[in-house]
Amino acid sequence: MTDIPDSHPRKASLMSRQKMVEASKRGLLAESAMIAHGRGEAFDYLLGEKTSDSASLAIREAAALLLVAESPVISMNGNSTVLAGSEAIKIASILGCPVEVNIYYRTSDRMEALIGELESLRDRLGSESLHKARQSIMDVEILGAVADGRILGLQGPRSLCSSQGIEQADVILVPLEDGDRCKALTSLGKQVIAIDLNPLSRTSKSATVTIVDDVKRAMSRLADELLENPKTTDWNNEAVLRDALDIMSSSSLRIA
Amino acid sequence: MTDIPDSHPRKASLMSRQKMVEASKRGLLAESAMIAHGRGEAFDYLLGEKTSDSASLAIREAAALLLVAESPVISMNGNSTVLAGSEAIKIASILGCPVEVNIYYRTSDRMEALIGELESLRDRLGSESLHKARQSIMDVEILGAVADGRILGLQGPRSLCSSQGIEQADVILVPLEDGDRCKALTSLGKQVIAIDLNPLSRTSKSATVTIVDDVKRAMSRLADELLENPKTTDWNNEAVLRDALDIMSSSSLRIA
Repeated sequence: MTDIPDSHPRKASLMSRQKMVEASKRGLLAESAMIAHGRGEAFDYLLGEKTSDSASLAIREAAALLLVAESPVISMNGNSTVLAGSEAIKIASILGCPVEVNIYYRTSDRMEALIGELESLRDRLGSESLHKARQSIMDVEILGAVADGRILGLQGPRSLCSSQGIEQADVILVPLEDGDRCKALTSLGKQVIAIDLNPLSRTSKSATVTIVDDVKRAMSRLADELLENPKTTDWNNEAVLRDALDIMSSSSLRIA
Repeated sequence: MTDIPDSHPRKASLMSRQKMVEASKRGLLAESAMIAHGRGEAFDYLLGEKTSDSASLAIREAAALLLVAESPVISMNGNSTVLAGSEAIKIASILGCPVEVNIYYRTSDRMEALIGELESLRDRLGSESLHKARQSIMDVEILGAVADGRILGLQGPRSLCSSQGIEQADVILVPLEDGDRCKALTSLGKQVIAIDLNPLSRTSKSATVTIVDDVKRAMSRLADELLENPKTTDWNNEAVLRDALDIMSSSSLRIA
């Protein structure tokens, strides 16, 4: 990776971009994944590249939902694995829940590559951790290879999932989900926590809790928040979407 | 290409995305080109995916500047060639000026591929045109292969250009330019017309005239505008940037 000086004001964003370029070369990403990442970059730019107060509330609500879930799962795709794979493992280890690779353009090559990537991130994170945390990290199951479950309401390869993961889950954390699938999951009565930088996307509008934030920042903070044992509230998701839009509007004028 | 129905409200945007994905496979694009395109998509989304009144004024001003230029040139990179190569040829044929391929990450493979792409777009456009237009289209020179000029103020491969094109030009149309090069060109006393969907970019802020619009829409309209013989005005570039920001702010709230 090219060295980006620590002093660079947009260092985190540029490092994420490099990660995406390299992952693309390694075949981890769908063809239009880089375009999706670019869209996210633009929205994050308008957000000031930091977690807003309303996103912090959404992260706390998400942590509370995950803590009371009977069967939580973290659904990862190519972009979220590349950008926040380690954070997903960490969250799963705290919750004692599985991580499931579930992608829109499903090919066995990409499924294998992403499962392998998460397994190696898990092994690295485990080896760097203190003894107590190490075992719970190494115990995180990476699902997805066996597609013995179905998401009712979707057709074709997009309906495939793991019976041990998404199919039986009551609360699903899905960073960077596609709109159709988010709707299908909530229609099945599951609670969906989405992380999406576009507050106007169908995913953002249909999720139970939407965290309008960069996926790495949000998941890193979510891992911390889980340790604070937050409680669920009477959640108004539309209010956080509205707040994100307000920030984008006013910050774009401010930057100018 | 996948068929996108004519009725799809975002058809133009989705077709551009497909063009980018295919051009990437063909090696026409830099590694991070898709990410840049995605950023553009997000800004265009906030613009409502249409040419604003202030962008129309900028297009008219650009046409007027190009018409009075002594030595105009159109500088094309990977993304602009893929998205609006034909439109560039058409504009050049009206002005009787050259098109120069000039890219940030210069490799001989990509230079050759982009020059070949523009030549084949020129040949196709010429063969589809009526006799009178055909000759002026076939006469459009595609520069870039011979890097016998320099952009003073830049270092390394990024300073290379054609002595017959950018080096001697007084007015340069540069869709999707990088900020450093835009500044270097204006520092040399050249007038720079930029097309950039991000009104906050360094390019947008440093160009003589900034067209905040999608590159294909803007260049297609610019070709029409040239035939109207517009006159230059006392141009306030900051006002169009401010207007674009206002539209993005209010439209994002409206869509919600």
